[in-house]
Amino acid sequence: MLPAITWKKDRLVMVDQRLLPWKEKYLELITVEQVASAIERMVIRGAPAIGIAAAYGLALGVRNLSRGCDLEKEFEKFYRRLWKTRPTARNLFWALERMKRVFEENRKGGLAHLKRVLLQEARTIEKEDFEINRKIGENGAGLIPEGATVLTHCNAGGLATAGYGTALGVIRAAFARRKNIRVYACETRPFLQGARLTVWELWRERIPVTLITDNMAGWLMSRGEVNLVIVGADRVTRNGDTANKIGTYSLAVLARNHSIPFYVAAPISTFDFKLKRGEEIPIEERNPDEVRKIRNRLITLPDVPVRNPAFDVTPGRLISAIITEKGVLRPPFSREIRKIIHRTDSGNE
Amino acid sequence: MLPAITWKKDRLVMVDQRLLPWKEKYLELITVEQVASAIERMVIRGAPAIGIAAAYGLALGVRNLSRGCDLEKEFEKFYRRLWKTRPTARNLFWALERMKRVFEENRKGGLAHLKRVLLQEARTIEKEDFEINRKIGENGAGLIPEGATVLTHCNAGGLATAGYGTALGVIRAAFARRKNIRVYACETRPFLQGARLTVWELWRERIPVTLITDNMAGWLMSRGEVNLVIVGADRVTRNGDTANKIGTYSLAVLARNHSIPFYVAAPISTFDFKLKRGEEIPIEERNPDEVRKIRNRLITLPDVPVRNPAFDVTPGRLISAIITEKGVLRPPFSREIRKIIHRTDSGNE
Repeated sequence: MLPAITWKKDRLVMVDQRLLPWKEKYLELITVEQVASAIERMVIRGAPAIGIAAAYGLALGVRNLSRGCDLEKEFEKFYRRLWKTRPTARNLFWALERMKRVFEENRKGGLAHLKRVLLQEARTIEKEDFEINRKIGENGAGLIPEGATVLTHCNAGGLATAGYGTALGVIRAAFARRKNIRVYACETRPFLQGARLTVWELWRERIPVTLITDNMAGWLMSRGEVNLVIVGADRVTRNGDTANKIGTYSLAVLARNHSIPFYVAAPISTFDFKLKRGEEIPIEERNPDEVRKIRNRLITLPDVPVRNPAFDVTPGRLISAIITEKGVLRPPFSREIRKIIHRTDSGNE
Repeated sequence: MLPAITWKKDRLVMVDQRLLPWKEKYLELITVEQVASAIERMVIRGAPAIGIAAAYGLALGVRNLSRGCDLEKEFEKFYRRLWKTRPTARNLFWALERMKRVFEENRKGGLAHLKRVLLQEARTIEKEDFEINRKIGENGAGLIPEGATVLTHCNAGGLATAGYGTALGVIRAAFARRKNIRVYACETRPFLQGARLTVWELWRERIPVTLITDNMAGWLMSRGEVNLVIVGADRVTRNGDTANKIGTYSLAVLARNHSIPFYVAAPISTFDFKLKRGEEIPIEERNPDEVRKIRNRLITLPDVPVRNPAFDVTPGRLISAIITEKGVLRPPFSREIRKIIHRTDSGNE
C-alpha cells in the first residue's frame, strides 16, 4: 500500500495527491510553512492524513529551532500557522492539541529532548492511525454483505490516512475476507478525489470498482443497484452529525429515501466532543476556480460566480451506524458517544 | 438570442455546442448523415432542438434526391438513420413522424413539390417551437415568486430549443417581468451542459447565475438557499413520469425531502402518449469516455469501468407541476394528460 505520508530520516515525504493518478511525485518537506502550505493546497488531504501531517509539521518546526530561541513563542507560531490551514477536519486540531500537550509536558527537558519526543509523538500518531484503521476495517467488514455493491464518495482510503483507510479500510477488510463485492466510486466534484484517488487505490488492489458521476447515485439506488453507502468523516459531533466531503449529505438523503444503509467510518480522533450539533461545525468555502477549472482548464466562463463549500453536514438521524475503532455505534448516537467520552482518556475532551 | 439551429438559404447551420462557451463555431450541414452524426455526437442536443434538427435532416435528404430515384425507399432510409441517433428524447420521434405524414400526404405531388413542403414543414416545426416556448414561459412565470432562487439542471434553454427555452424560458419570462430572481446552475456532469451552456445563456442576458457542482444541490436546499427547482424534459409518459438529464431524479428526491417545489417545463411534443409509465422509456447509455474525460483530458484511469446513463426518470409523484404551452398541469397527471390527448389532434397520438 502506498502511504500518503512517511517520515524519512530528517524529512517528511508526501505524494502530491493533486497529480494522482497520472504522476507519482513525492515532495520532501522540512519546514512548518511547507507542511502548512501542502495542507492548504491539498497536496495532502483527508482528515486523518491532515492530522498526521500537522503533527509532523510541529515536529519539523521544533527540529529547526536553535538553542537560545524563545521556544514557547516559536512553538505557538507554528501551532497557529498549522491551526489555520483548514477549518473543518477535527483531526487537524486533535493532532495539534496532542502535540502541544507533549510539548508542555517536556519543555523543561531541553531542546534536544523536545525535538526527540515531538518527532516520536508524530510517529506514534501515524502508527496508531494505521492500527485504528485496521480495527475500523475489522469492525465494519461484517456490515458488508456477501455480493454487495457498495457506493462510496470522495476518498477515505489509504491516501486519506496513514495507509489503510476508513471507508476504504472497511471495503478492504471485506474484500480480504473474500467477500464478492463491487464498489461504485462517485467522482466527487470539484476536486475529483473519487475519480482520481479512490479509483486508483481500488484498481491497484483489484477490488472491482466502477466510476460514476456524483449525480448518478440516486438513479442507481432507485434501480436497486446499490446495497449500501459508506463514507469517511471530517468531524462528528456529540449527536452523530457528520461533516464530510460535499455531496455526502445528498447521498445520505437518497440512501434513506431508498431504504439503503448509510455508514460512516471514522476514528475517535474525528469526533469533536465539544460540539453538540452539526450546525456548529465550520464549513470551509474554497477557491471558486476549483469549480471553474478541471485539470487547469476552464469548464465554464472565467468570471461566473461559484459556490464551493468543501463539506456538508449529514444529520445523525440519516446515519445507520458509525464504525469506529472502539466498535460500531448505532443510533441514538448521543448516548453511544457519551459512553465513549466517559471511557476516553486520550485527552480528546 | 442565439439560435441553436437555423436554415440558411440551402443549408442547415448549427453552432457546435460541444465547443461553447469558448468557441462559437458554426457547422453547415447539407446531408442527412451530417445531421444524424451531429445529433449523435451532441453537436446539437436538447429534446426540442433534436426534433427540429431531425425534421430539417429529412428535408435535406429529400432535397438532395434526383428525379427517378426510389423516393419511398430513400425516405425510409433517411428516416431510419435519424430515428436511431438517440433513443430517449420523444421530440426526435415526434418530429420524424410528423415529417413522414407530410411526406405521405404529398408524395404524389412530385419531387419538387415534396422538397418544398418538407422544408416548409421543418421551418414550421422550428417556428412553432419558438412560439410554444414563449407560451411555456408565460404559463410558468407566475410560479416563480419575486426574489426566488431557482435551481436548474442541464440546459433547457435557447440552445436546447428553437431559441427561447423551456425551463430557461420560464426563467427568462419571470426575469422579463422584472422579478428579482437568481439562478443556481448545476454543472451537469458528464457533459457539463449547465457549466457551459446554461451559465453562458444566462450570463449573456444578465440574469444572475451562480454555478455549483451537482453534488452541492442537496446541501444548499437544506440551508434554505433554493426556493424551487425547474428542469426540462426528454420524454413524459401518460402518468407524468419524466425522463430528463441524469441527475434530475436525485434533485427531485432532494426537493421533495426539503418541501421545495419541483417543476418540469416541456412542450406537448415531449409527451409520449403511447407510454403508460417511466419504466418503459429507453435510457441511453453513452460512451464511457464522456465520464473519463473532461475537455479531452482524462480525469481518472483510462480503463476504469464507468456507468454513463445519459438520462434518468423522475416519477410524476415527485413533480409539483408540468408547465406546457397548453397550461400548467397539476397532479394527478394521468387525468390532466388524458384531457390533453382528447383535445390534441396534432397527430401526436
